[in-house]
Amino acid sequence: MNFEKALNERIDFINEGLKTYLKPQYPEIIYEAMGYSVFAGGKRLRPLLLLGACEACGGDIKETLPFACAIEIIHTYTLIHDDLPAMDNDDYRRGKLTCHKAFSEDIAILAGDGLLNMGFEIMLEAAVKSGDPKFTKAAYTVGSLCGVKGTIGGQVVDLLSETKKADEKTLLYIHKAKTAALIEAALKAGALIGGADEETLAKLETAANKLGLAFQIKDDLLDITGTAEVLGKPIGSDDKNGKSTYISVFGLEKAQKDYLSLSEEANEIFESLGEKGAFLAEYCRRLVDRIN
Amino acid sequence: MNFEKALNERIDFINEGLKTYLKPQYPEIIYEAMGYSVFAGGKRLRPLLLLGACEACGGDIKETLPFACAIEIIHTYTLIHDDLPAMDNDDYRRGKLTCHKAFSEDIAILAGDGLLNMGFEIMLEAAVKSGDPKFTKAAYTVGSLCGVKGTIGGQVVDLLSETKKADEKTLLYIHKAKTAALIEAALKAGALIGGADEETLAKLETAANKLGLAFQIKDDLLDITGTAEVLGKPIGSDDKNGKSTYISVFGLEKAQKDYLSLSEEANEIFESLGEKGAFLAEYCRRLVDRIN
Repeated sequence: MNFEKALNERIDFINEGLKTYLKPQYPEIIYEAMGYSVFAGGKRLRPLLLLGACEACGGDIKETLPFACAIEIIHTYTLIHDDLPAMDNDDYRRGKLTCHKAFSEDIAILAGDGLLNMGFEIMLEAAVKSGDPKFTKAAYTVGSLCGVKGTIGGQVVDLLSETKKADEKTLLYIHKAKTAALIEAALKAGALIGGADEETLAKLETAANKLGLAFQIKDDLLDITGTAEVLGKPIGSDDKNGKSTYISVFGLEKAQKDYLSLSEEANEIFESLGEKGAFLAEYCRRLVDRIN
Repeated sequence: MNFEKALNERIDFINEGLKTYLKPQYPEIIYEAMGYSVFAGGKRLRPLLLLGACEACGGDIKETLPFACAIEIIHTYTLIHDDLPAMDNDDYRRGKLTCHKAFSEDIAILAGDGLLNMGFEIMLEAAVKSGDPKFTKAAYTVGSLCGVKGTIGGQVVDLLSETKKADEKTLLYIHKAKTAALIEAALKAGALIGGADEETLAKLETAANKLGLAFQIKDDLLDITGTAEVLGKPIGSDDKNGKSTYISVFGLEKAQKDYLSLSEEANEIFESLGEKGAFLAEYCRRLVDRIN
């Protein structure tokens, strides 16, 4: 397997799908705002995990396109709403104006709503067209991980912890719900489309949580040891904002140790999927090391 | 049929379902904010249409509970987001503080997101549990009518028309997308669960659009001829806000004439469904006359 070649081909495949779903129609401004944020430079991390998990379970990655696009579209809505003035109040993301700055606040709220709804529309359209219940099950899996028991709940607790230092349990909840839940959704939806059995689904759930937490700890480590270029945001900003991090809660030594063991444990699970899982294992290895 | 008795029993049935779905769990504040708005005095119009349509098509209304709750939950998210400072900036709705006033703006945005996501979760859970593809089809129908091609698109055009007088085509688009789309979603989802054929679905689509427009014209008429009590908001507010209405665009005479013919045509369709559709027909007749 030529990993780089496969990676680029898959990113093109996902972007073509996204372009089709986001092709402007009346009322154009809302499609422009949604498309602006979807094409603002995302690495397509979650769709790539979804494709890789489907392949690792013996499925045809062509079947995953609606779900791969839906999960990126849902991820993008969370970014637009998180950036709003009433939330994190960010003017820039990845060096580009945030949606409410490039358009307006009302349009950004509606663009977020539109993307969330579109994510479900796309998954449901695929389920209705195919008639195969595995797609309905995959859509339900995504839905239950990005709602108030997942991504949204994580954002709520993250907002609350801005005024009060997070304890260990709270910090782990935020990372699990805000970061790991959508990774778990991507891996499980891909696996369900690929025809995975319950045992493999359970394995991937474990791997998702280890990968999500390792990814987040690496973020916290880079915030004190890295460069703005690798991190994608200014160095030291967590400390400046008084934000609880894995390091501030558990200490630097434990953070470094846990990062290594979690990423190794996640890798072992991906590698146990065999040759079909080679892309997924390699992608995840690079992901926690921030090589991609 | 004792209409009043059936109406009250159905409202209780829907409210019990909503209470179960919105039972607070961690993180409690988001469930409290979502529940606050869902239980702020809605008439359960859309769930009642959904139940009635299922019954009119020969289905068992017990099967509709998840979808009846989901459509009310989705409707409530649109109200919370429409009321936000960046949108209509309303402090009160039905005499109670709006969600962002009773809680805070960030929690209100997330409560809206949480409700929209929960609506889909509930429908998908029902579809996965039953394994019957009719539920997946009903969820897709709801999803495609409340997204950028429906409710959200309607809100976008409504916002844009605040700075520019709406022409006839634009006004009809706003009413169709903002008001009629969710009515259509309720009727069609109920009908699909009730086992309706394509012909009945097409009939209900026509009826939904006539009913939705008649309902909206009545709103505009009450704004100049009614009382605040019947309308549920101050009289004359459309004119004061420079808002385009059916009357300002088409004139009072045509508005009155169209209201009568549209509601009569919608009634005829509901009545054509026969004895099983008696509740639905009576409910819709009262609805356009604002008797409920």
